[in-house]
Amino acid sequence: MPSISRKGTKMPESPIRKLVPYAEEANKKGRTVYYLNIGQPDIKTPSIALDAVKIHSLDVLAYSRSEGAEEYRKKIAKYYYNNSIEVDYSDIIVTTGGSEALLFAFGSIMDEDDEIIIPEPFYANYNGFSIASSIKVVPVISNIDDNFALPPIEEFEKLITPKTKAILICNPGNPTGYLYSREEIKKLAEIVKKHDLFLIADEVYREFVYDGVSHYSILQESGLEDYAIVIDSVSKRYSMCGARIGYLVSKNKAVIQTALKFAQARLSPPTLAQIAAEAALETPQSYFDEVKEEYVKRRDVLIEELQKIPGVKVAKPNGAFYCIAELPVKSAENFARWLLESFEYNNNTVMVAPATGFYSTPGVGLNQIRIAYVLNENSLKIAVEVIAEALKVYKD
Amino acid sequence: MPSISRKGTKMPESPIRKLVPYAEEANKKGRTVYYLNIGQPDIKTPSIALDAVKIHSLDVLAYSRSEGAEEYRKKIAKYYYNNSIEVDYSDIIVTTGGSEALLFAFGSIMDEDDEIIIPEPFYANYNGFSIASSIKVVPVISNIDDNFALPPIEEFEKLITPKTKAILICNPGNPTGYLYSREEIKKLAEIVKKHDLFLIADEVYREFVYDGVSHYSILQESGLEDYAIVIDSVSKRYSMCGARIGYLVSKNKAVIQTALKFAQARLSPPTLAQIAAEAALETPQSYFDEVKEEYVKRRDVLIEELQKIPGVKVAKPNGAFYCIAELPVKSAENFARWLLESFEYNNNTVMVAPATGFYSTPGVGLNQIRIAYVLNENSLKIAVEVIAEALKVYKD
Repeated sequence: MPSISRKGTKMPESPIRKLVPYAEEANKKGRTVYYLNIGQPDIKTPSIALDAVKIHSLDVLAYSRSEGAEEYRKKIAKYYYNNSIEVDYSDIIVTTGGSEALLFAFGSIMDEDDEIIIPEPFYANYNGFSIASSIKVVPVISNIDDNFALPPIEEFEKLITPKTKAILICNPGNPTGYLYSREEIKKLAEIVKKHDLFLIADEVYREFVYDGVSHYSILQESGLEDYAIVIDSVSKRYSMCGARIGYLVSKNKAVIQTALKFAQARLSPPTLAQIAAEAALETPQSYFDEVKEEYVKRRDVLIEELQKIPGVKVAKPNGAFYCIAELPVKSAENFARWLLESFEYNNNTVMVAPATGFYSTPGVGLNQIRIAYVLNENSLKIAVEVIAEALKVYKD
Repeated sequence: MPSISRKGTKMPESPIRKLVPYAEEANKKGRTVYYLNIGQPDIKTPSIALDAVKIHSLDVLAYSRSEGAEEYRKKIAKYYYNNSIEVDYSDIIVTTGGSEALLFAFGSIMDEDDEIIIPEPFYANYNGFSIASSIKVVPVISNIDDNFALPPIEEFEKLITPKTKAILICNPGNPTGYLYSREEIKKLAEIVKKHDLFLIADEVYREFVYDGVSHYSILQESGLEDYAIVIDSVSKRYSMCGARIGYLVSKNKAVIQTALKFAQARLSPPTLAQIAAEAALETPQSYFDEVKEEYVKRRDVLIEELQKIPGVKVAKPNGAFYCIAELPVKSAENFARWLLESFEYNNNTVMVAPATGFYSTPGVGLNQIRIAYVLNENSLKIAVEVIAEALKVYKD
């Protein structure tokens, strides 16, 4: 039998996926499972987006342009302008989710064995995309004690080699919820200019920033035009994860021209989803205000309740809808499985994501979990209560 | 300024794309351009598919499962069963177009510098996906004089090295329209088993077979279960290219498990398009009968008219909706550009795809073009008349 590739063997299994069978078992036992493990929000998609595909008048569901429909891209440029980011529509390539934008960016700027520095913990699928692209992730550890702020810039500098091609940040961060400050972005801008690296920022959670702090995009940093590549997506912004529409944005023309060749090879992003996503740009501000208010409430109750549990340390997130919590256990992975397999409180149990999947340094974050606050306040309270009661009896 | 990757530099530009500005210029001059260059059929999408997204009752446009919705995959398995192909739904991964299925297949079975043998001329984007996957295409030349039949199996054998991991065919073929016989598939089965290679078949044109000949899938060949990987797509079958729904199908569990990890990294195929594609499976047989009848008429008129032109040689296609024609010119690329730039007949001109983009051996196919018969009979007649008149006056 022919064998699969080394690359395929190295591809990580989703760290969350491993727990799914245990959650299914818990369901079968009649337990209610509170899912804090996934980034699939319960927030409704704006009706303007869902309705747009209901009133289409297509006869032929044809390819769109490989870079996305021109009219749509012009509206995206306007969206950025309204968010204090000045880009031309020709700086934008519409992709099949932020995932594809990352793959195009990696392919456009890196060859086999090239290196990309990423502050960890980071979005687990960066590992998968790196392996798929035959490149190497070089992690720089950020710390729960300062809410996962940018590590000292000297730590980055130490890791730069002739193979280093880029630094990748997620801002605000999944899984940390940390929002980088303007000063931190400026430090990153300096180092990439000094060493001639690209700075890739995954800004898919741009709108999810709280406490009156505003988001500073790498595209706002002047002098960074040739270095900055932004990964964006409509998935979280409009709660339309299933659309699979994202963007790659850069003022570096060579990057756009190269990414376009990758885009042409796969012909076009999905047409129906582009109709929905284009309509979503007309979502009224009240929708976002309500969503933001909802997330702030959820975050506040989640952090408050978690902090009451003895031995639990939690990083307060300023953005996105995740937080990392450190538990008084040896292995959060074992604890997470045990919760589903063997624990219930008032017939409820909880599924959390062990944080190890978000680190690439072995042995780090073993006692941490990521919680996605994608459930309503009441559900979050019940879920944290389950965790609190579980920790009272858990032995590892 | 940081530089783009070697890979990015090598990524081919779409061979068709280069001509687009010339077509736009011709349009501006008020000429009617007949587009024979693209695989975007004018056939209407079945209304059952388009209507399905109009009546959805989604509140949240959520991710689907990474491998595609289970119910949808069960229906796909039934579709295969009705096409004499026995697969379980667990052998199927739903992908974002056939393009993504190819990328998952390449990533799952090949590492950097591994080799894949492909009869040429072949679908141009196989080049792009190979470069994106850091693998090497090894072409084996097929010939217009025998309608691009399978090259002698010894020619494959000569090219096999320790780096060879797979043979890839497109059946029926884009750009050749050639339908491989059962005997040809059996020969390929033997050679892949002998040398422990995978056999990948791009069968997206499965239904487009003419003259009473039937399609023989590599999945029908017994003993090939561990070797066969099928790439499929709804794009052409239901004229829904813009859906971006395809499948990777294999009975080799290791391949499916590995491809699933690639699928998990990108989260999910597009949800709206899956709704349309699932509904499309209920398309009545009459739709396909009419489409097939239409394509046969088109092919017949196209071939007949082309054969009337002095010095033109054309391969008669049994499947898909393409044919390769050899023209009495030195450079089909120059001729194609000249048609758009400088020629009109009754104010009409034509856009064809120079065939060089479908070859990876330099210098082969220079005088060939690919014609997609995606226009109606009358338009095809006019278009071929333009080519005939053009050849009377063209000097290269």
